[in-house]
Amino acid sequence: MATPVRSATSRAGRDPDLPLPQAPGASREETRRQNLGAVLRYVHVHGPTSRAELTSRLGLNRSTIGALAADLAAAGLVTEEAPTGTRRAGRPSLVVSPRSGGVYAHALSIEAYRLRAARIGLGGRILDLREACRPCGMSATDAVAPLGGLVRDMRRAARADALFVGGAVAVADTTREPDGKIRVGGADPVFRAALATEFAGGPGFVAGDLADIAALAEHVRGVAAGVNDLIYLHGDLGVSAGIIIGGRLFAGHRGHSGKVGHMVVRPDGLPCGCGSRGCWETEIGEAALLRHAGREPGEPGAVEEVLRAAARGDRRAVAAVEQVAGWLGFGVANLVNVIDPATVVFGGALREVYAAGADIVHRRLHELALPTSREHVRLRAAALGRDAALIGAAELAFDRLLADPLNAGAAG
Amino acid sequence: MATPVRSATSRAGRDPDLPLPQAPGASREETRRQNLGAVLRYVHVHGPTSRAELTSRLGLNRSTIGALAADLAAAGLVTEEAPTGTRRAGRPSLVVSPRSGGVYAHALSIEAYRLRAARIGLGGRILDLREACRPCGMSATDAVAPLGGLVRDMRRAARADALFVGGAVAVADTTREPDGKIRVGGADPVFRAALATEFAGGPGFVAGDLADIAALAEHVRGVAAGVNDLIYLHGDLGVSAGIIIGGRLFAGHRGHSGKVGHMVVRPDGLPCGCGSRGCWETEIGEAALLRHAGREPGEPGAVEEVLRAAARGDRRAVAAVEQVAGWLGFGVANLVNVIDPATVVFGGALREVYAAGADIVHRRLHELALPTSREHVRLRAAALGRDAALIGAAELAFDRLLADPLNAGAAG
Repeated sequence: MATPVRSATSRAGRDPDLPLPQAPGASREETRRQNLGAVLRYVHVHGPTSRAELTSRLGLNRSTIGALAADLAAAGLVTEEAPTGTRRAGRPSLVVSPRSGGVYAHALSIEAYRLRAARIGLGGRILDLREACRPCGMSATDAVAPLGGLVRDMRRAARADALFVGGAVAVADTTREPDGKIRVGGADPVFRAALATEFAGGPGFVAGDLADIAALAEHVRGVAAGVNDLIYLHGDLGVSAGIIIGGRLFAGHRGHSGKVGHMVVRPDGLPCGCGSRGCWETEIGEAALLRHAGREPGEPGAVEEVLRAAARGDRRAVAAVEQVAGWLGFGVANLVNVIDPATVVFGGALREVYAAGADIVHRRLHELALPTSREHVRLRAAALGRDAALIGAAELAFDRLLADPLNAGAAG
Repeated sequence: MATPVRSATSRAGRDPDLPLPQAPGASREETRRQNLGAVLRYVHVHGPTSRAELTSRLGLNRSTIGALAADLAAAGLVTEEAPTGTRRAGRPSLVVSPRSGGVYAHALSIEAYRLRAARIGLGGRILDLREACRPCGMSATDAVAPLGGLVRDMRRAARADALFVGGAVAVADTTREPDGKIRVGGADPVFRAALATEFAGGPGFVAGDLADIAALAEHVRGVAAGVNDLIYLHGDLGVSAGIIIGGRLFAGHRGHSGKVGHMVVRPDGLPCGCGSRGCWETEIGEAALLRHAGREPGEPGAVEEVLRAAARGDRRAVAAVEQVAGWLGFGVANLVNVIDPATVVFGGALREVYAAGADIVHRRLHELALPTSREHVRLRAAALGRDAALIGAAELAFDRLLADPLNAGAAG
């Protein structure tokens, strides 16, 4: 059975103390808007779908689905075509498809070592992809101008009549301020101001934490599709988590949830960049793997080399992976005890550490987590690889369109 | 301004993989049901409210509110009366009040040392309260029969025409099975079966974790009223948390979230009853306080004595509280980094530890949590004291009535 379609919008950007929209007296227009959104979201997530299937999946009647699909087609958001190769007698049910080539979002990511920009069509198809190096020391704010350049290049290559619905940026890092405070890149007001200036005059760009956004991607289209309670762990230089609860991204009261890399796991441990000591990322971040393997931090490709050496059976590399996998399992056990997720997904560099040390991660989980939670939790390597952040950013960018299909677009 | 009314239903009892109810094509009956629920919930949470205020709070028009209130009054759920002492000219707006004496739930709690049972009226008023000792070693399942006796006594004392809407039980403990597995009391199938048998023939009893249920009480009527993202920490023999996210109790994928007492905070720490080592509750549970104070675990009243001695300035007792408060702050910092709540509430024995050692808790939080999350988080002592579990259990029990006011009751 297909996965029920669920909205998985970030709460970033709205006052978290406001109630979620309530509709004790939902109007007809509101009902129609919700229904249009439900149909468009369904084909966006599941791809081309017949009217008959939409009727049964969404619990609306046939004529309602027909009218909604016709409205979406008239707005240029979907196409409707007779199915090919049907052999059954009678009039075949039209197939509704998202107009991937004609409706798009810009998805950007500011990653540890790279800047990436994609044009992603409705339905999640990557239509164009550009990247640039992120020089060591370049702040998220400084990355906005080069990203703007990539976006301009992509826009020139896009069809002139295509509908641009907005953009989103996934930001990987926390930056330290001169006052010693750590700011999450995506929430930094200077960064947001730079973003607003660079992309002025369009439907606007939203920004969020890379782990949150990659979590959304794995939840909508990846290894956790249909899983409503999950923790996505992303590792690169640091470690953070995206938490999805009840099918919705939980970004925290002020957008800072999932800073799991700064759980203290060893009160007597190594100093961490955040000013504390023994944080989880001092034991499972890239630097930890390199330290155990006797490599210098900052060597490009060194993490991959250690993982390859471990796969070959190199004794020191294997021991390094085992060390990191042990601490990975330790922290996962704590998270499982606190949150009781259905699935934990390992992404970024942690994907490879998990792949190489899954036995150890499972053993630590078994030793440390309560049976009630660990009995059902599934551990999974991320499916979308390095595109997860871009795919998730596009989901964020499409969200406004999917909430109100006929009133959200802007010509790009 | 009044707090927006929010549903804060436990997810216990429904399949967590099912989507939340979606209504792309909400019917008129459904809209009416939602509106009836919104009015009843408002007066249940906020007490007597004029029709005029309901009109403005709920965003419905005056005649709709009038009709809804009349329907609720006809069903015996509310009363409508002219306000007393009004001096304004014109016809005064009728005041809608919950019928506390005529509509009630049974709220039960299985606590570390006590069994408690209350009859709680719509609006949250405790109408009757009974308690019994819980002898050392009595399992949650064995507690069901004596609770049944307390409920029968209360029912005999209730008005014969009162509407009984259902019951709920808050269960404090995890029990160890002969196979070494830990089961949460409320989720134990043997316990649930005992509950179903004891309370057969009525609208039924639901069960949940005491920390979850007390969290709900503090969220609806306590120190965290109107706060939608909060962690409630409950300490007695063990330590667990109720987590409310976006105004809803998050019980975990299988109802086991918040087992924060079993986060490992000292990998080299003391053995824990769960089979692991260095769990948070080995440092902040009652046994830790007594250990540091040189007292034997299990002495009745010993925890209170240590806290009183610390308040008097007894050196050893003060040092014991400081030790526990330090570890309390340590774990809170980890939770704040992971979840980014708006508020952390300290309940049970942790309420007193926090009250005595708040400076230390705040200092540890400051040292260990990221500024982005700790800058806005508020730490609060619980407001409802030992009644929190009962008040929260009543909220759970009333939830079905509030979701569908005219079709949920059953004569008791």
